[in-house]
Amino acid sequence: MSDTENDIEQQVRGWAEGIWRPGIEQGKRLLATPVDPDLRIEERLARLEDIKAIEDAFRLYHIFYGGRDLEATLDLFTDDAIQVNGRGTFIGKESLRSSYEYLMTNQKFIIHHGTNVLVTLDPNDRDAALLTARHINFWVGETGTPGIVGGTYLNRMRRVGGRWLIAEQRLTFNYRTVAELVPRVVNSTAPTPDLPLNQRDLLEDWSLFA
Amino acid sequence: MSDTENDIEQQVRGWAEGIWRPGIEQGKRLLATPVDPDLRIEERLARLEDIKAIEDAFRLYHIFYGGRDLEATLDLFTDDAIQVNGRGTFIGKESLRSSYEYLMTNQKFIIHHGTNVLVTLDPNDRDAALLTARHINFWVGETGTPGIVGGTYLNRMRRVGGRWLIAEQRLTFNYRTVAELVPRVVNSTAPTPDLPLNQRDLLEDWSLFA
Amino acid sequence: MSDTENDIEQQVRGWAEGIWRPGIEQGKRLLATPVDPDLRIEERLARLEDIKAIEDAFRLYHIFYGGRDLEATLDLFTDDAIQVNGRGTFIGKESLRSSYEYLMTNQKFIIHHGTNVLVTLDPNDRDAALLTARHINFWVGETGTPGIVGGTYLNRMRRVGGRWLIAEQRLTFNYRTVAELVPRVVNSTAPTPDLPLNQRDLLEDWSLFA
Repeated sequence: MSDTENDIEQQVRGWAEGIWRPGIEQGKRLLATPVDPDLRIEERLARLEDIKAIEDAFRLYHIFYGGRDLEATLDLFTDDAIQVNGRGTFIGKESLRSSYEYLMTNQKFIIHHGTNVLVTLDPNDRDAALLTARHINFWVGETGTPGIVGGTYLNRMRRVGGRWLIAEQRLTFNYRTVAELVPRVVNSTAPTPDLPLNQRDLLEDWSLFA
Repeated sequence: MSDTENDIEQQVRGWAEGIWRPGIEQGKRLLATPVDPDLRIEERLARLEDIKAIEDAFRLYHIFYGGRDLEATLDLFTDDAIQVNGRGTFIGKESLRSSYEYLMTNQKFIIHHGTNVLVTLDPNDRDAALLTARHINFWVGETGTPGIVGGTYLNRMRRVGGRWLIAEQRLTFNYRTVAELVPRVVNSTAPTPDLPLNQRDLLEDWSLFA
Repeated sequence: MSDTENDIEQQVRGWAEGIWRPGIEQGKRLLATPVDPDLRIEERLARLEDIKAIEDAFRLYHIFYGGRDLEATLDLFTDDAIQVNGRGTFIGKESLRSSYEYLMTNQKFIIHHGTNVLVTLDPNDRDAALLTARHINFWVGETGTPGIVGGTYLNRMRRVGGRWLIAEQRLTFNYRTVAELVPRVVNSTAPTPDLPLNQRDLLEDWSLFA
């Protein structure tokens, strides 16, 4: 391992050792630094808008990823973004591109449930923030058994050119259970709809049973 | 199919074709239209309040539905609301009433987990907004096997008389797995509570085992 | 049962009878009391900040609990907090301490997914608020079978010394299904990461397979 690789490894270990430690630190820091009551109205409003924009970025990540829009997904990261996931550490946008290309190619259908989103703004850097969250996802691959997996997120966010981007991301996958796609069941005792058009007509072929 | 039905079908297809397409469009539009920095404070504040009110409406939908309050549930929709679900397309409040009456009658117990709520305000219409979300729900019917089902939401919201209502709603149910009601297990090594009153005493009969 | 115990039992029954009733009341009250348009900007902003702070407290509860930080968890409650859970009613911080000590000691790993958070401020008391939510959690105990459990939350919040604390909390556990920790699977066709460091290296021993 080169000196640079060692540096990055130490840096990543520094912010991500242990699932809960970064969140606990985040929480204690938040409680220790209440919003300054002398802040101007404009600044208080900008804080709420920033938090909303960062929450939105987390929602967009799951939409673009679920919809297999590779470019839109990558555009949510900084050029030098670092991601640690179950397979290893990916550094920089080209490395992330090959990882997401692989994931999206093998992904037949996915629904991410991102929960417990907590955003805290860095009191010393207006362009830095931390987002922690949890996830529980249904996944069907081109191969393998469909199922539900769950775990945690930690995103270090950075504002670049007015947009909040993911600069560092740690994902963990910690548990799983089985699940299956919903079959085409029609309940004949239900009220008759006004039009036959239903969710099946509105979905892409790849999301349906063969 | 009449011309009107054809029009509605085309309209519904227009906004709902594909699970992810509307969300991807929503996300790209959001990124392309950042909040105008010249907006007055009052307007910026009103935006955040509107977003909160729309998120609240989504929460109320699941509370009223879970609690089987038919009137309160229907009051969250516009009079001419359209809903596309797994069974077909329902148009107008009376049509929705018969659908929810059917659903609530057959529903012994339900807990909805609504996640990934993303609200975007229409930049050209102060009374229009879009909400996308995902859901994962535990359900026990009067008949059938209890289980967990999950899928997606797309709500077109409209402000009517100062309240944000659902004007168009698309629900998809995409996956499922088995689950069961929690049995009455008492762990004898746990600390003794100060009062015996517990969740079982607080629940309606219909949510308990027979 | 003493008179005091009877009083507390009546009080708890009063706010918690039925899973959905408190949420339905909360929702109807919210719809009946829209934000006063004559409120000053400062007050409207303070409302949004209060709601955010209460949502954050709910997130912190799950982080501190998941990370088994007993003191930080207890610090989120008022000194005379009441909690009703599946085992009974716990009154006061020392009673809660023994309950959480028991829970954390027997908890090998937990991920809480808190969803459907709805916060409403008391229009008649600036230091009181209500939070309702649902939860779905993966849990591995020192003994017993790992699994997913789900249910509901109702937190009465009180501002004490500038911080929003839990004054009364009702938790219900209503459903469950099986799940397991994710095993160490390596997919050999995936892109090679830039560094081998992965989520397994970043986790505490106790969260891994033996």
